[in-house]
Amino acid sequence: MGEFDLIARHFQRPARRAVLGVGDDCALIQPSAGQQLAISTDMLVEGRHFLSTVDPARLGHKALAVNLSDLAACGALPLAFTLSLALPQADNTWLEGFSRGLFALADAHGCELIGGDTTQGPLNISITVLGEVPPEQALLRHAAQAGDDLYVSGTVGDARLALEVFRGHLSVGGDVFERARARMELPTPRVELGQALRGVAHAAIDVSDGLLGDLGHVLKRSGVGAQVDTGWLQGSAAVSADLLTLPWTRRLDFALAGGDDYELLFTAPVRERERIHALASDVAVPVTRIGRITAESGLRVLDPQGQPINRRFASFDHFSP
Amino acid sequence: MGEFDLIARHFQRPARRAVLGVGDDCALIQPSAGQQLAISTDMLVEGRHFLSTVDPARLGHKALAVNLSDLAACGALPLAFTLSLALPQADNTWLEGFSRGLFALADAHGCELIGGDTTQGPLNISITVLGEVPPEQALLRHAAQAGDDLYVSGTVGDARLALEVFRGHLSVGGDVFERARARMELPTPRVELGQALRGVAHAAIDVSDGLLGDLGHVLKRSGVGAQVDTGWLQGSAAVSADLLTLPWTRRLDFALAGGDDYELLFTAPVRERERIHALASDVAVPVTRIGRITAESGLRVLDPQGQPINRRFASFDHFSP
Repeated sequence: MGEFDLIARHFQRPARRAVLGVGDDCALIQPSAGQQLAISTDMLVEGRHFLSTVDPARLGHKALAVNLSDLAACGALPLAFTLSLALPQADNTWLEGFSRGLFALADAHGCELIGGDTTQGPLNISITVLGEVPPEQALLRHAAQAGDDLYVSGTVGDARLALEVFRGHLSVGGDVFERARARMELPTPRVELGQALRGVAHAAIDVSDGLLGDLGHVLKRSGVGAQVDTGWLQGSAAVSADLLTLPWTRRLDFALAGGDDYELLFTAPVRERERIHALASDVAVPVTRIGRITAESGLRVLDPQGQPINRRFASFDHFSP
Repeated sequence: MGEFDLIARHFQRPARRAVLGVGDDCALIQPSAGQQLAISTDMLVEGRHFLSTVDPARLGHKALAVNLSDLAACGALPLAFTLSLALPQADNTWLEGFSRGLFALADAHGCELIGGDTTQGPLNISITVLGEVPPEQALLRHAAQAGDDLYVSGTVGDARLALEVFRGHLSVGGDVFERARARMELPTPRVELGQALRGVAHAAIDVSDGLLGDLGHVLKRSGVGAQVDTGWLQGSAAVSADLLTLPWTRRLDFALAGGDDYELLFTAPVRERERIHALASDVAVPVTRIGRITAESGLRVLDPQGQPINRRFASFDHFSP
């Protein structure tokens, strides 16, 4: 099977919203009048971002999900994406699964594959997503303000739980593992929540490298500090029943520095508390208040008794050991 | 050096035209009112698209050039690009060279780096470019018409000459090799020519896999055939003095099926001949008429005496041996 047959068989579908889809030198889209375009790109490498044993349909889902998560963090509406794929060989079974998982998520968000590139090489998946957002309404990292509440969507720490089982550092029951593994391999980008937060939240970021590390980017950009509470790790919508069964320090590590959660971490004025909970309820995504933004710089993590926790939470970095 | 330091040191520059550049979850751009967006993506893999010994500045140039060439083939004006980079290690010397070559070409075309991703992994460079083009004016593969002239820009075959020397299949003088190597490693995307051809040319494609193979895409999409002459391979603007020194069959193979040329192959009505040469002269890119589009399907290559050449010209395919 040649490159063009592979594309035709697995990735070429008629353009729906795009003016011109897969198959020419460029794709063409007609942006809505007056909207800004939001663009993000993420590259997934075998052994670094996923295991070689992962189900290809789940991998197709995840490769797009991590990109949609970036649009969500800006409050953008997904429009279209491109896919560049390096494959060791053209394996139809693998490609069928991969494209099935990819398109299922794409279709759920009305996000159209408009172009791409395939080549022979070590497995590498690079996606660029395009979305749109009204001018001045994108949720950005630099917009946190002292006094803001700090929230996280969904649950955090489960993906790390699965990773530690894969690494042999942790042993749990089979059903616990499968649930955590699904959170790691099938993350849910919070696209509707991101859009609902436009005009309400101040700053937002998606949790990919770990909650505290990603929060650090917001603090640095916004020139503020934060206090992160941990009482919610004793039981709240943000911690799964499975994570609750783990010892306290593991819970802290997995939830605050686990990574791969693809939840939204955002700040909003105190006066918006009711509105935040109402809109979260509208989009059926739990949202938990986990701390607040402070004028004083630095990031303080407090134990449930309000005392500072002095441990180092290492965030995931692609060029650190 | 961590991922964020690497980005800050080598790839982060203040946004100029973009509303928001590198450093948030998404970049933001404001498309010009009424314009369509043209989007293309190309992935370069070591050993497949470039040799491990290539000068990193040249590689930075080429990675963007092959993408700009796709915009050129649609007649689009470059706006911005994203860069995803998998690197075996964070090597500052390499990154300095790579980013220098990349930004030199980007700046020459006013094309801004607005986002990206870096990760550890086998060397892989994936770029997505965004451009804009007035509605209905993009040059597309399906628009060739029977009776059209067929043209190619610049010279073809030189990149393949260099590749065959690298492969040890051909021996040439050092200066010949260096010139051919520069054509292979520093291709010139025909961005201005592509824009000048809007409203004049019918179909266009860039020559990346080989002239005849790429022409085949145009013919298939347009439902037409073509006659390609070869008299121009005995001496014309489309064949370099170095290629002219090679035996006839090598010249045929390199020019018609060599690949990696990044020239524009386009069709235009006979009545536009004068205009084509005038606009080519305006943008200082030679353009050579090399055949014509026929109503009869199929691709016929004629020798300088007008007799059919019956050889197989294999085009480059990333999943064929």
